[in-house]
Amino acid sequence: MSPRVEDGAAQRGRGRRPGGPDTRAAIVDAARSSFATKGYDKSSLRGIARDAGVDPALVHHYFEGKAALFAETMAVPVNPAEVIAHVIAGDRDRLGWRLVETFLAVWEPPERREAIVALARSSMSSEEAARMLREFLGREVFGRIAASTGAPDPQLRGALAASQMIGLVMARYVVRVPGLAEASPADLVEHLGPVLQGYLVDGPRRQE
Amino acid sequence: MSPRVEDGAAQRGRGRRPGGPDTRAAIVDAARSSFATKGYDKSSLRGIARDAGVDPALVHHYFEGKAALFAETMAVPVNPAEVIAHVIAGDRDRLGWRLVETFLAVWEPPERREAIVALARSSMSSEEAARMLREFLGREVFGRIAASTGAPDPQLRGALAASQMIGLVMARYVVRVPGLAEASPADLVEHLGPVLQGYLVDGPRRQE
Repeated sequence: MSPRVEDGAAQRGRGRRPGGPDTRAAIVDAARSSFATKGYDKSSLRGIARDAGVDPALVHHYFEGKAALFAETMAVPVNPAEVIAHVIAGDRDRLGWRLVETFLAVWEPPERREAIVALARSSMSSEEAARMLREFLGREVFGRIAASTGAPDPQLRGALAASQMIGLVMARYVVRVPGLAEASPADLVEHLGPVLQGYLVDGPRRQE
Repeated sequence: MSPRVEDGAAQRGRGRRPGGPDTRAAIVDAARSSFATKGYDKSSLRGIARDAGVDPALVHHYFEGKAALFAETMAVPVNPAEVIAHVIAGDRDRLGWRLVETFLAVWEPPERREAIVALARSSMSSEEAARMLREFLGREVFGRIAASTGAPDPQLRGALAASQMIGLVMARYVVRVPGLAEASPADLVEHLGPVLQGYLVDGPRRQE
């Protein structure tokens, strides 16, 4: 995984904090409420600032953008924009493998297992949560990755990739399906890499 | 889809009912409680009969087996054993496509959408629910399908297939990821069929 990913996680929230930690927490609370009630797409940094009773410049001071703020409300330990940039950068012929490798680098550390299970469960708990995840994944994650290849039909391609990655989270971390729960990251990359590559870049393998 | 699948759904619970509908409901209640507390593997039809205060022969009268009783407690509209038998029967070179086709035949009818969303959400809601799903899928569904091919490493193969099918349910029915939510069943079979075939039979596609 690129050092940028780790740097991003470490750098969030650093620097001068004119409003203090209470202000930052108020922004996160307002954002959580806005994402849950309006969804991801209709939430704006300006509206969140207003709800939190702070100047919009303060929101930009603490968070790189809406995706980073959303990640904060969901206790995601990295800045999604930086992770996605890392996946997209580099050889198009290795995109599928790189997506799986990068995903595992973010979520495999033992201290993050609990966080991803909580995230997965809460994302499935209600229509509001499903909507947030749908809009966020579509706009910030799989939409960007699929569009980066220039291949036709990026929306379906991104959605197919999303289905396999959501399934990986559910099967490995939440349900812990035997065989997948204890597979090594290298095995997962070997088996899932070509499938993601097929979904995102190459198209379906034809029956021989 | 095979007519057997529909027949199975229609025939469950038919015939003479010596104990009456209350007895049948008592068995289902006892089963639901047993699966939730002991998990799928450690629940037995004999123990469920005892909990329900009925003769074990009555459980066998109403339900073909543990899988059918589990399906009933989860409001699954078909007998899993019959669906799996249909998937396994037939050309090994088409197994992946047949799995996707059969799955969609069972779950695509509009009146079943709500049921599968409820099933998916409840399966993700707690550790007990995850354990039930894990044991049931491993023993009755993907374990059987993967073992039917005779290919090496059936547990990992079945688990990979499970991850994509769980992801399909979550992405299409629960999260409704754009692109996948509105894809036609034929498109899904075209894209997912070869992936399931690869997981279950052919092994990973090597990078060229």
